[in-house]
Amino acid sequence: MSAANRPTTPLVAILMGSDTDLPVMQKAATQLKYFGIPYEMEIVSAHRSPARTAAFAREAAGRGLRVLIAGAGAAAALAGALAAETTLPVIGVPLATSPLAGFDSLLSTAMLPAGVPVATVAVGEAGATNAAVLAAQILALADPALAARLAEFKRELIGKVEEKSAKLKATHQA
Amino acid sequence: MSAANRPTTPLVAILMGSDTDLPVMQKAATQLKYFGIPYEMEIVSAHRSPARTAAFAREAAGRGLRVLIAGAGAAAALAGALAAETTLPVIGVPLATSPLAGFDSLLSTAMLPAGVPVATVAVGEAGATNAAVLAAQILALADPALAARLAEFKRELIGKVEEKSAKLKATHQA
Amino acid sequence: MSAANRPTTPLVAILMGSDTDLPVMQKAATQLKYFGIPYEMEIVSAHRSPARTAAFAREAAGRGLRVLIAGAGAAAALAGALAAETTLPVIGVPLATSPLAGFDSLLSTAMLPAGVPVATVAVGEAGATNAAVLAAQILALADPALAARLAEFKRELIGKVEEKSAKLKATHQA
Amino acid sequence: MSAANRPTTPLVAILMGSDTDLPVMQKAATQLKYFGIPYEMEIVSAHRSPARTAAFAREAAGRGLRVLIAGAGAAAALAGALAAETTLPVIGVPLATSPLAGFDSLLSTAMLPAGVPVATVAVGEAGATNAAVLAAQILALADPALAARLAEFKRELIGKVEEKSAKLKATHQA
Amino acid sequence: MSAANRPTTPLVAILMGSDTDLPVMQKAATQLKYFGIPYEMEIVSAHRSPARTAAFAREAAGRGLRVLIAGAGAAAALAGALAAETTLPVIGVPLATSPLAGFDSLLSTAMLPAGVPVATVAVGEAGATNAAVLAAQILALADPALAARLAEFKRELIGKVEEKSAKLKATHQA
Amino acid sequence: MSAANRPTTPLVAILMGSDTDLPVMQKAATQLKYFGIPYEMEIVSAHRSPARTAAFAREAAGRGLRVLIAGAGAAAALAGALAAETTLPVIGVPLATSPLAGFDSLLSTAMLPAGVPVATVAVGEAGATNAAVLAAQILALADPALAARLAEFKRELIGKVEEKSAKLKATHQA
Amino acid sequence: MSAANRPTTPLVAILMGSDTDLPVMQKAATQLKYFGIPYEMEIVSAHRSPARTAAFAREAAGRGLRVLIAGAGAAAALAGALAAETTLPVIGVPLATSPLAGFDSLLSTAMLPAGVPVATVAVGEAGATNAAVLAAQILALADPALAARLAEFKRELIGKVEEKSAKLKATHQA
Amino acid sequence: MSAANRPTTPLVAILMGSDTDLPVMQKAATQLKYFGIPYEMEIVSAHRSPARTAAFAREAAGRGLRVLIAGAGAAAALAGALAAETTLPVIGVPLATSPLAGFDSLLSTAMLPAGVPVATVAVGEAGATNAAVLAAQILALADPALAARLAEFKRELIGKVEEKSAKLKATHQA
Repeated sequence: MSAANRPTTPLVAILMGSDTDLPVMQKAATQLKYFGIPYEMEIVSAHRSPARTAAFAREAAGRGLRVLIAGAGAAAALAGALAAETTLPVIGVPLATSPLAGFDSLLSTAMLPAGVPVATVAVGEAGATNAAVLAAQILALADPALAARLAEFKRELIGKVEEKSAKLKATHQA
Repeated sequence: MSAANRPTTPLVAILMGSDTDLPVMQKAATQLKYFGIPYEMEIVSAHRSPARTAAFAREAAGRGLRVLIAGAGAAAALAGALAAETTLPVIGVPLATSPLAGFDSLLSTAMLPAGVPVATVAVGEAGATNAAVLAAQILALADPALAARLAEFKRELIGKVEEKSAKLKATHQA
Repeated sequence: MSAANRPTTPLVAILMGSDTDLPVMQKAATQLKYFGIPYEMEIVSAHRSPARTAAFAREAAGRGLRVLIAGAGAAAALAGALAAETTLPVIGVPLATSPLAGFDSLLSTAMLPAGVPVATVAVGEAGATNAAVLAAQILALADPALAARLAEFKRELIGKVEEKSAKLKATHQA
Repeated sequence: MSAANRPTTPLVAILMGSDTDLPVMQKAATQLKYFGIPYEMEIVSAHRSPARTAAFAREAAGRGLRVLIAGAGAAAALAGALAAETTLPVIGVPLATSPLAGFDSLLSTAMLPAGVPVATVAVGEAGATNAAVLAAQILALADPALAARLAEFKRELIGKVEEKSAKLKATHQA
Repeated sequence: MSAANRPTTPLVAILMGSDTDLPVMQKAATQLKYFGIPYEMEIVSAHRSPARTAAFAREAAGRGLRVLIAGAGAAAALAGALAAETTLPVIGVPLATSPLAGFDSLLSTAMLPAGVPVATVAVGEAGATNAAVLAAQILALADPALAARLAEFKRELIGKVEEKSAKLKATHQA
Repeated sequence: MSAANRPTTPLVAILMGSDTDLPVMQKAATQLKYFGIPYEMEIVSAHRSPARTAAFAREAAGRGLRVLIAGAGAAAALAGALAAETTLPVIGVPLATSPLAGFDSLLSTAMLPAGVPVATVAVGEAGATNAAVLAAQILALADPALAARLAEFKRELIGKVEEKSAKLKATHQA
Repeated sequence: MSAANRPTTPLVAILMGSDTDLPVMQKAATQLKYFGIPYEMEIVSAHRSPARTAAFAREAAGRGLRVLIAGAGAAAALAGALAAETTLPVIGVPLATSPLAGFDSLLSTAMLPAGVPVATVAVGEAGATNAAVLAAQILALADPALAARLAEFKRELIGKVEEKSAKLKATHQA
Repeated sequence: MSAANRPTTPLVAILMGSDTDLPVMQKAATQLKYFGIPYEMEIVSAHRSPARTAAFAREAAGRGLRVLIAGAGAAAALAGALAAETTLPVIGVPLATSPLAGFDSLLSTAMLPAGVPVATVAVGEAGATNAAVLAAQILALADPALAARLAEFKRELIGKVEEKSAKLKATHQA
């Protein structure tokens, strides 16, 4: 599919358990926008609104969604609850919202039983950004224009390191 | 309610994600039998059979169940998934089934968000036994005969310590 | 028991080791008030006033208390000390008061030996709130009005998620 | 693409740092076979053969590979090293091969910096199986036959739980 | 006090929560015997026989005991429960009896609140031995003969290292 | 020894690796003053001034010191280095001075090998206070006046809990 | 080599993954300056600019570099990636940049497989300083003037402890 | 220095706290032999024979030693105790000898204060091998023949991966 006729219905959903997770999960939205990937954001809770969560997951593929991104803290069950109800790839972003510094959300997101995977990324903001990059990598398998954008993104990563390197050398002389 | 006409329909359900959890969760069954509390055992999985898990939880109170005990390992979501769908007390038993030695299941079971509690007990066999004792303590609030049995159980705990003490003193002289 | 003649003598005690724990444990009080459950608050320390702690636990049932909630940090022994002296259900709230971020209090509260359970909830404020919800769930087994209130509480949880979802959609358009 | 003309050139590569990782990573192979997904297995080491690892990743897309699965233990850098050199989705399987019980490999695999995601799954055998399921979920986005196979796989997961449940009920009567 | 008229009534009590802790705690007994310090062993449980535990601690000083050694696993409350009821020095030996590898017992034993110290030693057998050495160091402050024995013990430690060194050199030549 | 002729030469030394540890270790000094126990404070470092550390430990008993208290953070070796060179009781206070939140100092202080104990107390300020209380408990074995002061201290602990309880009840009515 | 004709081309490279790591890694630069060791600073990223990282490592020895210091946080792969491509000694400084408090970077830096060592130092600023001291120790093996400077540095460490001790005694009298 | 006249007096010392550490530390010896680096093995204990440990470190440089390798478990103080007394590079190998799975020894070895570095390698056998490789890398800075041997060693690492890869492909066909 060329960039010209890329669909405007959402391909990715960014889900989170609470609006307090929004500042971190916004990083995923920003990164999806960068790639030009249409997305939607939604608040659902594995523990507080389970039926709505399950319904969202069951209907996701039919609505045209391709990848689900779920951010959650503490006993972070959201990504797993979605993965239980869909065969779409689900990406889990552990958030460090409890006193346990994110160890709880990382283990709760990653250690799923055989048969129901969650693609777990890093705890916190780096993870939220990477959830979007991973979604782009998945979608790019069938979207050459997006694949090209990802290749450019990788060159930009390199370029930014080189810029920082040049700036460092300009200001710090041994 | 007197011991004579205690109901024979299950008051407690012992749920687990897999039959491999049975040897540990059997401790809960043994302890419930000790208290004369009718129970049922069931295998449901938060991740592999979510609809059945949710249905079980939603129908539990109507079927006469009063307390749910859920044993699960790794990203142990079972107890939380049940608690999401019922207002019955749910007791979670973290099981040490992954390489992470039970830290994953303990954090996944205990760190639930405000509004949806799980009564978490110890990792492993001690926890399975204690889930049954806790269930008995809950049921005993409305069952004087069971309360009396619990009081006796506490005396037996003391008695066993004294027996072990006597045996130790008989065999080990400084 | 109908809501009309619900007792005004405390059914739940919220115990804590120090007044510095009050800001977090107040969440439990707020939630019990929400459910209309009469409660009392008390400061007792497993390590600093052990006799008073034990006496409290031994007399609790006789005074009409049905559930004990204990918040403690570090080597959090309070819930276990109470559970050692009563057959009432004891709910433990681990508090993150030491440099070890709550891992110490979580393990100290949850890992009790077979025979003496503590119903452990999450570390910190979510746990304090959930201790009250769990107490309500336990009391509701013999109190249909409270059970109805819990069902409404669950609907409110769902409603709040939906409100947040609506607000998110109103303000964030992809 | 229909099942009839599914390609026989590998779509997935299963990489590992050492042949000692093979018994666990074989689970991924078994699961890919189950889905009828052609794959290849390879031993490359981020630390011992970095040039070969980088070359593999750089050439992977051109050779027709769509998803890379990397299993590694300890300071598990393999998945990240591959992700650094390709925009294909990379799935990391942390292995519990050091004395630190898999905590080292989980943190090393999951905590990647913004820009270079690794889809981390559970530590050990469950993770190896799930890496294959996740790869299938990704590939199924453009392969309706595979999507159907995944839907059937989900039904089988449910069926197996029901079988175990029936067996449990047949052998354990309270 | 000279070695000749050292008392035969116990100066040290070795307490443990269960006879399953005996094989490890026996190391403390062996080491006390080595120093010629009269001791007694007792099984008491902070959680299962709290009144007996408290009584033991309250009567300990009056019975001539000078130091209490307490070994316990999991949510290891025994040492703290004793320290709550006596001003004698209490030494805690964390035991690795739960799936959590001793992290639970170490944190539960060491992290006591201000005012009620427990002298915590290492997890497991090294700790059991060291509890006895520490008890000897404490008692030696008022017992010159024991102080001399401790000085000799330190020389023996050095001597054993030298013996092992000599043996190593005899058998391993680079 | 009566309170009247209690010695004014230091019985306890409070050692720390750096003056940055002083604010926490000052708690030990305050508590020793409370008990009327003469003490000295010293800065020595196991790693930066090892010879001075060893000399301090070797000369400590001869100078009349009875108990050594050592506070250190990170790879907290100070207490163990002192214990290696003296048979006086050494109390270790782990300090949370590194990014690892005190887990490093707790493990480094407590996990000593058989033969060389360190009496480890809690991480941080509670531990610093308790080091002094433990020192008092040790010294009180041969000082009845100090034993009486400790008994009074325990009553004060109880009294403070009761005061806080009364204050709580005065201000919080359910 | 005498101090007179010490080379001015860099002997040590201080590498880091991002300019946000500079404030901590500057400690290494300061310490190298103290020793008069010429160094260069560079920003390279194992994950974002892998080819440049590998090239740096492969060319390092040829350019006259003798020791590489690499600071990185989270899944800290930089030091290992360099070590994979050079036989020069590589020193890894784990940085506490993620929510996981440095546990992730410490395990990721230290737990390398047999054949590819990284000399890991402490997490954070102490580690950055020590990376430079360790580099000096390595270089001093072939540089007697530097060895003398290190000996003086050690005396200064002792001197600073003595100064702090004197200041403490002047201001704190028991 | 050419291989022909490489010295036969030890350049590296492999130290360990106990002969029980020998099976793991033997890996370091084997690897040094592989490189043709003369070494000696010695048993010294930071805690049990501190004076001998300090003396060894102080005399090491004068005896011609260039690098010290120290293996220790639990509160692994040996490497730090050596580093405190010498300016030679000290490599620490954390051993998993306590119930805490090596977390204690890793933190105790790595988290040294500014001024006294220990080059920490991985926990266990991989670390023991790598201590020798790191020692070789350090010595090779002034020994071109050894540098060549290290380059060959790196090629062998690559070769072994390729051999394993070939063997895998021969036996596992997808």
